[in-house]
Amino acid sequence: MDTLPFDGGRLSRCADDLIAGIRVLSERGWTPATSSNFSMRLDPGHVAITVSGRDKGRLERDDIMVVDLEGRPVATSLRSSAETLLHTQLYARYPEIGCVLHTHSLVQTVASRLFAGAGHVHLEGYELLKAFHGNHTHEMAVELPVLPNSQDMPVLAAQVDALLDRQSMWGYLIDGHGLYAWGRDLAEATRHLEAFEFLLACELELRKLR
Amino acid sequence: MDTLPFDGGRLSRCADDLIAGIRVLSERGWTPATSSNFSMRLDPGHVAITVSGRDKGRLERDDIMVVDLEGRPVATSLRSSAETLLHTQLYARYPEIGCVLHTHSLVQTVASRLFAGAGHVHLEGYELLKAFHGNHTHEMAVELPVLPNSQDMPVLAAQVDALLDRQSMWGYLIDGHGLYAWGRDLAEATRHLEAFEFLLACELELRKLR
Amino acid sequence: MDTLPFDGGRLSRCADDLIAGIRVLSERGWTPATSSNFSMRLDPGHVAITVSGRDKGRLERDDIMVVDLEGRPVATSLRSSAETLLHTQLYARYPEIGCVLHTHSLVQTVASRLFAGAGHVHLEGYELLKAFHGNHTHEMAVELPVLPNSQDMPVLAAQVDALLDRQSMWGYLIDGHGLYAWGRDLAEATRHLEAFEFLLACELELRKLR
Amino acid sequence: MDTLPFDGGRLSRCADDLIAGIRVLSERGWTPATSSNFSMRLDPGHVAITVSGRDKGRLERDDIMVVDLEGRPVATSLRSSAETLLHTQLYARYPEIGCVLHTHSLVQTVASRLFAGAGHVHLEGYELLKAFHGNHTHEMAVELPVLPNSQDMPVLAAQVDALLDRQSMWGYLIDGHGLYAWGRDLAEATRHLEAFEFLLACELELRKLR
Repeated sequence: MDTLPFDGGRLSRCADDLIAGIRVLSERGWTPATSSNFSMRLDPGHVAITVSGRDKGRLERDDIMVVDLEGRPVATSLRSSAETLLHTQLYARYPEIGCVLHTHSLVQTVASRLFAGAGHVHLEGYELLKAFHGNHTHEMAVELPVLPNSQDMPVLAAQVDALLDRQSMWGYLIDGHGLYAWGRDLAEATRHLEAFEFLLACELELRKLR
Repeated sequence: MDTLPFDGGRLSRCADDLIAGIRVLSERGWTPATSSNFSMRLDPGHVAITVSGRDKGRLERDDIMVVDLEGRPVATSLRSSAETLLHTQLYARYPEIGCVLHTHSLVQTVASRLFAGAGHVHLEGYELLKAFHGNHTHEMAVELPVLPNSQDMPVLAAQVDALLDRQSMWGYLIDGHGLYAWGRDLAEATRHLEAFEFLLACELELRKLR
Repeated sequence: MDTLPFDGGRLSRCADDLIAGIRVLSERGWTPATSSNFSMRLDPGHVAITVSGRDKGRLERDDIMVVDLEGRPVATSLRSSAETLLHTQLYARYPEIGCVLHTHSLVQTVASRLFAGAGHVHLEGYELLKAFHGNHTHEMAVELPVLPNSQDMPVLAAQVDALLDRQSMWGYLIDGHGLYAWGRDLAEATRHLEAFEFLLACELELRKLR
Repeated sequence: MDTLPFDGGRLSRCADDLIAGIRVLSERGWTPATSSNFSMRLDPGHVAITVSGRDKGRLERDDIMVVDLEGRPVATSLRSSAETLLHTQLYARYPEIGCVLHTHSLVQTVASRLFAGAGHVHLEGYELLKAFHGNHTHEMAVELPVLPNSQDMPVLAAQVDALLDRQSMWGYLIDGHGLYAWGRDLAEATRHLEAFEFLLACELELRKLR
C-alpha cells in the first residue's frame, strides 16, 4: 500500500463520503438504469471516481477507483466511465474544484431536450439563485448551457472548454443526457446540483402552466 | 450555563422537536440546496431558530441557535438566516404564535411566480380549508398573499406588517421564493404548512387540467 | 376490562393492523394536514376508528377508539371524526364489509373537483379494473360517483345510501374532499383504494396529454 | 425435498434476490393494488415466479413458486399469475434470458393508452438508450411495441411471438396494462425496466411541454 501514488486513507474517506452522497441522489431517482457518474479530488493530481456501470444506489468502496487528471486509471485494472474526461478537465483547469457530480434526472433530461435548440436555459427571478457560490441576491440571472450530445469525449470536452473560456459557471446540460454540476467540495457541488434541478423543475412547470 | 437568559433545557427539547419536524419536510424535498429556515418560541422574549446555510435534512442540536425578538443572536457567535426578521416580527406581534416554518417547495415557488401578478392565491371549495385554525367549514375562502421578493428584510417585514394590519392569516408566499406558515405550536404550524402546500398543488393541477 | 361490550384483544390486534396500514398511506402523502380517517369492524355491532385530528403518520393505539353502528363512542370519552357516520352506514348496511378507508390525496381531490359537474368518473380500458372484488376482466367499466361536499353528515349519508340503492360499488369521491373506499378486510379495502388512486391518476394524466 | 426436480438451494437464493429487487420497484409505486408479476430462471427447464395476488411490497419466500416452461406449477399447489405464459414463452424461446419483470407504473399505463393506436413508442435521442444490452451509442432508436390487451393469454403470447420473429427487443407494453421487460439476469432486467420507465416518462413530459 505504501507504494500508491496517493493517500489510501484519504481515498477511503472520500469514497465513504461520496457513496453516502450518491445514495441520497439515487434514492431520488436521479441515477436511473446504472447511469450517472461522480468524482471527488484526492490531491492535486488524483481524482476518486465511480467505476463504470454500477448501480449507484448500492455502491461500495470497491466501486470507487482512482484516475489521474488525464483520466487514466491509477493502480487499478478497473475501468471508469467513458465520460471520465468531462470530470478531469474540470479538476485540471480549476485547482479549487473538489467535486463533480453528473446525474440523469427526468427533469434534467427533459429540460436538455426542450432547450437544446436555444443552447441554454435562462434562470431568473428565483431566490434559490443565491445557492450558487458567488451569488448574493436573487436579482441576477444564470444561463445554464445545453451542449449537443456526443459519444466522442474529446469533442464534448472541447465544447465545454470553449464555454468555460467565455463564462464562469457551475454546471451544464448535455442534450438528451443529463447535468454536470461541480463545486469546491461535495457539499457545495450537491447544493449546486440541487439548485439546478429545482430551478429546471420550476421552469418546466411554469411552461406547462402559463 | 446558569447565566443564560433562557432555559437551556427548554432549548434542548425545542431543538429536538424542531429538528425531527424539519427532517420530515426535508425528505419531501421542500428545503432544496440548504434553503429554508425554521423557528420555535422558547419564552416571551426568545426564539430558537436554524443557523444559516445548513443542510436541513441533517440538522443537529448545534444547528439551532437563539435570537431575541429583534432577531439578534443571544449567547452565541453563530449567524441566523438573513430572513430572521420575518420570523421574529410574528413572535413580537402575536404572543400566541409558537412556531414559524419557511420552506421552498417546487409547488410553493411555482405558485408564487404564477400568482405574483395577482398578489394572492384564491383558495376555495376544499375540505382541507378546515385545517386552518378557526375554520370550521369548507364553505369559506382563504386568500394567500404573494409578496414581491426583496433582499431588504425591513422592507419585506413592513409589507408583511401591512398585510397583518388588514387581515388575520396563517401564511404568505414570497415571489420566486417560498412559503411562510405559522401556528400556535409546531404541530399546528406544520398542519398549516401542509394544508397550504396541498391546496397550492391542487390549484396548479387544476389549472393544467381545465 | 371484562365489562367492555367488545373484545379488547381483538381491538388491540385491529388497532395494530390499521395503524400499520395507515402509516403506508400517510407516507405517500394521502393524509395531509391531519386529514383522513380510517376504520375496521370489530364485531357485528362495533367498529374501531381513528380519533379526530391526529397526525395519521404517527398513530398509536390510543389514537384508535370504538364506536357502535350509529357512530356513538363506546367506553371512551374520545371524539371520532365528524365523518364517522359515513363509515358506520356502510358497516350497518353490509355485514360483509370489514374495513373503510378515507384519504385526501392530491389526485383524489383534483379529480373530485374536475368531475364534480359530471357526478362521476368513468373508468374503462384498464387491466387494474380487475383489482375490484367481483371483476374478472378489464373489459368492463366502473363509474366512480362524485358527491357534492357538505358539513351535514346525515345529508351526505343519505346521498350515499341513495347511490347504494342503485348500484353496487367499492368507493366514492366527495367534491373537494377525497375518496372513500372499502372492502371485506383491510387488505381488500387497501387494494380498492390503491386501484382507485391509480386509475384516477391515469385519467388526469391522459387528460393533460390528449 | 431431495425428490424436487429443481435445486432447492438455488430456489431459495433466487427467491431472496427477486424479493429484494421487487421491494425496490414496489416502493416506487410500480406494483399498485397487488398487480404485477416477476420471475427468474432456476435452470433450463424451471422458473421461479411470484404467486398470484400477493402484495408485492411484502413478499416472503412462500410467495415465490416454481413453474416449468409451459407455465405448469411444479411441486406446489399454489397458483401463479394468469400471465405466467408471457413469462415462460420468453424463457422457452431464449436460453440466455434469466429474468422477466412485469410492472404497472402510472407512466407505463398512461403511455400504453396513449400510443396503443400507433402500436409502438418511438424512443430516440436519449443517452439512456445505451442502457439496453447491445447498444453502444445514443445515436439509434428503439421502438417499444404496444400490444392490445386481452384476457386470453395464448392470444397475447402469439402476438408477442410474432413480434419477436420480426425484431430483437427487451420489452413491450400492453394497452391499459403495463410493461414487460427482461434480461440475462435480474440486474440487467432491472436496468432495462428502469430505462424504459425513464424514457417513457421523458416522452410524456415532452409531449406536455411542446
